[in-house]
Amino acid sequence: MADVAAPAQDALRLWLRLVSTSARIERRLAASLKRDFGSTLPRFDLLAQLDRAPAGLRMTELADRLLVTNGNVTWLVTSLVREGLVSRTRATHDGRGIVVRLTPRGRAHFAEMARAHEQWVAELFAGMPVAAREALAVHLGTLKQHVAHLEDSP
Amino acid sequence: MADVAAPAQDALRLWLRLVSTSARIERRLAASLKRDFGSTLPRFDLLAQLDRAPAGLRMTELADRLLVTNGNVTWLVTSLVREGLVSRTRATHDGRGIVVRLTPRGRAHFAEMARAHEQWVAELFAGMPVAAREALAVHLGTLKQHVAHLEDSP
Repeated sequence: MADVAAPAQDALRLWLRLVSTSARIERRLAASLKRDFGSTLPRFDLLAQLDRAPAGLRMTELADRLLVTNGNVTWLVTSLVREGLVSRTRATHDGRGIVVRLTPRGRAHFAEMARAHEQWVAELFAGMPVAAREALAVHLGTLKQHVAHLEDSP
Repeated sequence: MADVAAPAQDALRLWLRLVSTSARIERRLAASLKRDFGSTLPRFDLLAQLDRAPAGLRMTELADRLLVTNGNVTWLVTSLVREGLVSRTRATHDGRGIVVRLTPRGRAHFAEMARAHEQWVAELFAGMPVAAREALAVHLGTLKQHVAHLEDSP
């Protein structure tokens, strides 16, 4: 008989490959961020979220988008405020909550990091033929949609 | 002219899709682990590493395999020792270092979680046709190999 893996093991192997591939790329990107900017991926992600929200974000919105705990976000924001990259102001509408925004310096700093980050990612994917990249994008799209669909069901 | 994205942006989009797909799946798995076992992914990963190393692992080896900081590993191991799932003994050969092992109870607990985890993963991937899964595995393999190759070069 042919060596046919059970579907559950097959899915597990695929999942482990997905996780280990992203972990490997993340490790490379983290090392490059540290080397060239003395920064980290959580800092980069936080600045990226703020860059996409020119009006600023409340601490809770920021934490939601980053998928990290509130405690970590508070700690990260405090250190970015100290470096002058981020500002923290009380929300004016209802007087509740704190709104976090990039400062002009923070925006310029992020733009520089984002350019470098895009180049690093391009280098990491440069070894894949274009057709393989397109196929990977399509299959990940299918998977993501399926998982999103499961999330909507109880 | 056709709307052709620059290769760097194209790679970035693919990378974001890869990260967001794995993050989404991780979130589902983390929620299931919490719901059914009151556990977390870092705990699960740590137990999985020990399950693969019956002779035990030194704290530093464990930290390397988990890609987390030593401080976090120490904290996790301490709480697992307290629950009787993991044992900590001094390495006998050279008297230096601490070796961490699963206790029989830890091994049984992990086996139960691993069975459930495999089922959850199977469900998450069940929406993908087999051919798409196989293609995804192949393309991830190409990407991973390319990134590993870059790691070997300076």
